[in-house]
Amino acid sequence: MKLLSYEHQGRIGFGALRDGEHIVTLDDLGYDSLKGVLTARALPILQRLAAERAASLHLDQVRLLPPITEPEKIICVGVNYGNRNEEYKDGSAPPAYPSVFPRFPGSFVGHGQPLLRPPESEQLDYEGEIALIIGKAGRRISAEDAWDHVAALTCLNEGTVRDWLKHGKFNVTQGKNFDASGSIGPWMVTADEFDPRAPLEVRTRVNGELRQHDRTDNLMFPFAELIRYISIWTTLKPGDVISTGTPIGAGVRFTPPRFLKPGDVVEVEVSGIGVLSNPVADELISHS
Amino acid sequence: MKLLSYEHQGRIGFGALRDGEHIVTLDDLGYDSLKGVLTARALPILQRLAAERAASLHLDQVRLLPPITEPEKIICVGVNYGNRNEEYKDGSAPPAYPSVFPRFPGSFVGHGQPLLRPPESEQLDYEGEIALIIGKAGRRISAEDAWDHVAALTCLNEGTVRDWLKHGKFNVTQGKNFDASGSIGPWMVTADEFDPRAPLEVRTRVNGELRQHDRTDNLMFPFAELIRYISIWTTLKPGDVISTGTPIGAGVRFTPPRFLKPGDVVEVEVSGIGVLSNPVADELISHS
Repeated sequence: MKLLSYEHQGRIGFGALRDGEHIVTLDDLGYDSLKGVLTARALPILQRLAAERAASLHLDQVRLLPPITEPEKIICVGVNYGNRNEEYKDGSAPPAYPSVFPRFPGSFVGHGQPLLRPPESEQLDYEGEIALIIGKAGRRISAEDAWDHVAALTCLNEGTVRDWLKHGKFNVTQGKNFDASGSIGPWMVTADEFDPRAPLEVRTRVNGELRQHDRTDNLMFPFAELIRYISIWTTLKPGDVISTGTPIGAGVRFTPPRFLKPGDVVEVEVSGIGVLSNPVADELISHS
Repeated sequence: MKLLSYEHQGRIGFGALRDGEHIVTLDDLGYDSLKGVLTARALPILQRLAAERAASLHLDQVRLLPPITEPEKIICVGVNYGNRNEEYKDGSAPPAYPSVFPRFPGSFVGHGQPLLRPPESEQLDYEGEIALIIGKAGRRISAEDAWDHVAALTCLNEGTVRDWLKHGKFNVTQGKNFDASGSIGPWMVTADEFDPRAPLEVRTRVNGELRQHDRTDNLMFPFAELIRYISIWTTLKPGDVISTGTPIGAGVRFTPPRFLKPGDVVEVEVSGIGVLSNPVADELISHS
């Protein structure tokens, strides 16, 4: 089942996608959001209703939002595809542990919304990724049990302002958290549609040109291992997002670098999910 | 006004402190939390009611929670007191920008609750800090306007699991985000009780022994500058927490290091706010 969150006539709603273009609304059941649905373990109810009800909206009528509109945690993984560590050319050994950093919800927009290049930088870059949406809370989850805690998967563009990554002595926080610098969507696809043993493919295109392409059997830390490791220190909760790392080929790795410019279109495609597409625009400066 | 959040007979509530030990409850006005109060810009209403109403609870009857129970963002600042950078003994120049990293809400408990030393480490450490609670949303806030965006101040123990700080290639996320490794409280004190030009003092004691002590006129990046800098990239929202850095003297800096042990009591005292006190306990292993 493909579940999506949207804004329609000034109201935020959610529902299921049918036939790739119609929306069966599901936000009248007493759950305030898809996170609320996951928290109530009510996916089976949605699944049944989504099959019974008629579609009442068309994709063209709504503005898509990230499927989970208010996640408590968005945990991103760095340097996770096998050849990414070599890309740093620092001669370092493969890492013993995943590199993880949080992003705030405001740093992401939904499918079709512009990625904003802030006036403070000309180094907005893309990072195509596969994101896991947690469905069942847990701490110290074993790798064997990990898949049971995944409610859905989605595409994520972990957009980055490269020069601001280096501001901090020990952290990449700033360059990973500019408002509207990344995107999530277009929808999330429930875990029952995936075989956890089958590799997924992720591709990133800029203006139609393939820039990143890899498979999850090339991950240094596979999905189950990420869930095991992260849940050692933090309780994973329904609606939490884990973005699992990006393949080689981000704009900063080209010589000269190929950063995003206004008018560019970035697509992140994941097998079994679909295509997350966003145009790039210059941010109009807003002061408080 | 001192505002606090608490659990009483299984219910979460909030109110104002009176005479240092009584609670005037204020959670019956339609706001679901102190974050809800700030979002509605309703502090003046609370202030009036807190003066008119009788106290109905005693501090001893409740379990205190972090004053903002569900902040969207908790942004912590590293290496901010003038002599902290030298403490690293790496010969580096003073930083040009603040070092910032996020923490998740679950990594903090309220006043009086145990800080948990996880079974995965013997290196739980304290970091006494002053935290700002944002009251008014803003992006690209000027340093001149920054104080207008602060609703309240509180004490924060930015408790850290030292060996897990070094797991990541570029980030300190793991060691800063063990569940219940830090604390916030005991309450937040509204900004009108502070003169923004007067330095504040922060002290950390372990079992009564003074370990950290510094003044905010020694900050490399003062409060207003932190708000200016952070709001360049992220929209600050009501209830967001900015923890402003810790003085020298954390346990890891001693030779040999003096990490926290079960039975220790850590106090963080900030002038004009009060004392945040927490015992240390070994975490009972919980599996999902």
